[in-house]
Amino acid sequence: MTKILIIGGGGMVGQKLAAHLATQGLGSDVAPEVTLYDIGFPPSGASAEHHLTGNLADQAEAARLAALRPDVVFHLAAIVSGEAETNFDKGWATNMMACWHLLESLREEHEESGGSYVPRLVFSSSIAVFGAPFPAQIDDTFFQAPRTSYGAQKAITELMVTDFSRKGFIDGLSIRLPTVCVRPGKANLAASSFFSGIIREPLNGQPAILPVPDTVRHWHASPRSAVGFLTHAAALDTARLEGRRALSMPGVSCTVAEQIEALRDVAGNDAVALIQRKDDPAIMAIVSGWPRDFAPERARMLGFTAEASFAEIVRQYVEDELGQL
Amino acid sequence: MTKILIIGGGGMVGQKLAAHLATQGLGSDVAPEVTLYDIGFPPSGASAEHHLTGNLADQAEAARLAALRPDVVFHLAAIVSGEAETNFDKGWATNMMACWHLLESLREEHEESGGSYVPRLVFSSSIAVFGAPFPAQIDDTFFQAPRTSYGAQKAITELMVTDFSRKGFIDGLSIRLPTVCVRPGKANLAASSFFSGIIREPLNGQPAILPVPDTVRHWHASPRSAVGFLTHAAALDTARLEGRRALSMPGVSCTVAEQIEALRDVAGNDAVALIQRKDDPAIMAIVSGWPRDFAPERARMLGFTAEASFAEIVRQYVEDELGQL
Repeated sequence: MTKILIIGGGGMVGQKLAAHLATQGLGSDVAPEVTLYDIGFPPSGASAEHHLTGNLADQAEAARLAALRPDVVFHLAAIVSGEAETNFDKGWATNMMACWHLLESLREEHEESGGSYVPRLVFSSSIAVFGAPFPAQIDDTFFQAPRTSYGAQKAITELMVTDFSRKGFIDGLSIRLPTVCVRPGKANLAASSFFSGIIREPLNGQPAILPVPDTVRHWHASPRSAVGFLTHAAALDTARLEGRRALSMPGVSCTVAEQIEALRDVAGNDAVALIQRKDDPAIMAIVSGWPRDFAPERARMLGFTAEASFAEIVRQYVEDELGQL
Repeated sequence: MTKILIIGGGGMVGQKLAAHLATQGLGSDVAPEVTLYDIGFPPSGASAEHHLTGNLADQAEAARLAALRPDVVFHLAAIVSGEAETNFDKGWATNMMACWHLLESLREEHEESGGSYVPRLVFSSSIAVFGAPFPAQIDDTFFQAPRTSYGAQKAITELMVTDFSRKGFIDGLSIRLPTVCVRPGKANLAASSFFSGIIREPLNGQPAILPVPDTVRHWHASPRSAVGFLTHAAALDTARLEGRRALSMPGVSCTVAEQIEALRDVAGNDAVALIQRKDDPAIMAIVSGWPRDFAPERARMLGFTAEASFAEIVRQYVEDELGQL
C-alpha cells in the first residue's frame, strides 16, 4: 500500500488532492494510506487516515514527518507571496529553511534504510520564480530572476530538490503551478485573489471588485488541473526529466476581459454586471511584475495537461462547487 | 577610509585582489583598510592591515565578520566543486548555509544601524550554475540548471544575495567567474586544473598531462581579469542592474588546441612538446558537462572586460609570475 503524505494538506489544493486520492487512489493503488499535515484543517474537510497538526517551521517537525517513511510526499505548504514579502523572517523560515530540513530528514531516512528508501517528493513551486521583464512567452529555458522573496524561496527549494534527487537521496521534482483559479470559498489576502473573485462572487450572486484594467493578461489553471499536475508528477518516470527536475505547468493565458467574456458565456450579463471596476494602484504594481504567458513544452511532452479555455475553467467551478451544469 | 573585507583572502584570487588593493586602492580611495579572512594564509602572502583566521562554516563567524561593518565585502570563500561533490555536508554547510548566516548577520548590522549601514557585497559565483545541454552560447537569460552540488549552492546564494539587496539590507551582486587560467603555483585537485597545468608546467620547463581531447572548448579569464571583475563590481552603480544582480562575466572561449597554439606562439615548440596526451575518462565526463561559450552582453555593457585572446592570457602569466616579456 502506497503511503502518501500531504504537507499543507489543510489548504485548498491539499484538500482537493486528498478528496481525489480518497476516491481515485494514486496510479494503480486504488486505496493508498493518506496522511495530511498542516497547522490546521477545515471543520468539514476531506477524509484521510491520519490528520497531523504542526508547524513545519519548527525544525523537529521535518524529522517527525520523514520518520513516517512516506512513499510519496506532496509538499504544498508555504507562506503566501504577500505575507513572505511583509514578514521576511517567517517567509524564509518556512519557504526555504523548513524545506531544507525536510530534505535533510528524508535523506537521513534514506541513509538509515541502507539506501532502499527513496521517496518521491512533489514540490509545489510557482511561476513567481520568474521576474519581469519577460519575453512574450516564457519558455522552458528562461532564467529564474524572481522579484519577490516568495519567488526566491521557491527557486531555491527547486535547486535543492534537484540536487538531493541527483544524488539519489530522494526522487523529486518541482512543478510550477499557474495561478489556481477559480478558487472556491472566501477571498484571501493574496494580490491574485481578484482573479478568482471576479468569477466566483458573481456566480454566487455577490458583487466583486476588479482592481486592475481588463487588459491585464495572466496564466491560470483550475483546481482540478492542479490536482492533476500533482498526481501526474507523483507517478511520472523521472528518468524522462534528464536531470532537469523543475517544470512550468501548462495553463490558460488570457486577459481579464477574456475572463469576463467567459463568465458571460456561462452565466450571462446579470453575472457580469456584478463586477465593479475600481483601480487599485498597489495591486496593479504587483500584478504588472507577474508572468503573462508560457510555452511549457516539456511539461506538455511529459503528459501534463490543463484546460483549453477560461470558459472551461468557469464551467468546472460551477460543476465542482455549485453542483450545477 | 573604505573598510574592505575579503572572505577567502588566503586563496589565489583573494591574494591577488589584496595585492592589487594594497597598491592601487579601490576607486577613489587609494588607501583602503583591508582585512583578509580565511582558514589559513600562504607564508609570504599579500600584505593587509588585518589577517583573521577562522572557518566561515562555524555559525558564530558570520556575526564576528559583520560586526567589523566593512563597507565592501568580497566573498570568495568556497568548498571547490570536486570536494562539494564528494563531501555533500561540507559543501552545503560552507557554500550555502554559511552564506545565509553571513547575509543574516549583515542584515542585523543594517538594522542595528537604523538602516544607514548597507554594505556592498560582491559574491564570487561560477559558471557552474549552468548545466548541459547548452546552446552554442549561453546568453544572459539562460536558466540555472546546475549539475553539481557546487553549482546548486552558487545559484542559491545568488538568489539570496539578490533578495537581501532588493529589500535594501545590503547592496550586493554576484559575478560568475569563468575558469581562472593560468593559475600560478601547484596543480590542485579541481577537475579544471589541467587547463592551467598544460600552460604553466611547460612554461616552467616541466611536463604536463592533458587528460581530454584537444577539441574540448571552455571559457577562461586570467587572474588579472578576475581581480578586475571584483573591483569593478565593488564600484558599480547597482541601480544599473535593474534588480538582476547576477552576471556572467566576459571571457575567452577557446579549444584546448587553441590554448596549445597560444602557448606555441609565446614559448615555442619545445614548450608544447612537454604536453603529454593521456585521456582520463573520469575528467572528460566532468568536463563534458561544462559551459563552452557565453554571450555576456550585460556584463560587457556594464563595463566588465576580459582578455581578447588566450595568447594574451598566456603572456600575462609570463609577465606576472615569471617576471619576463
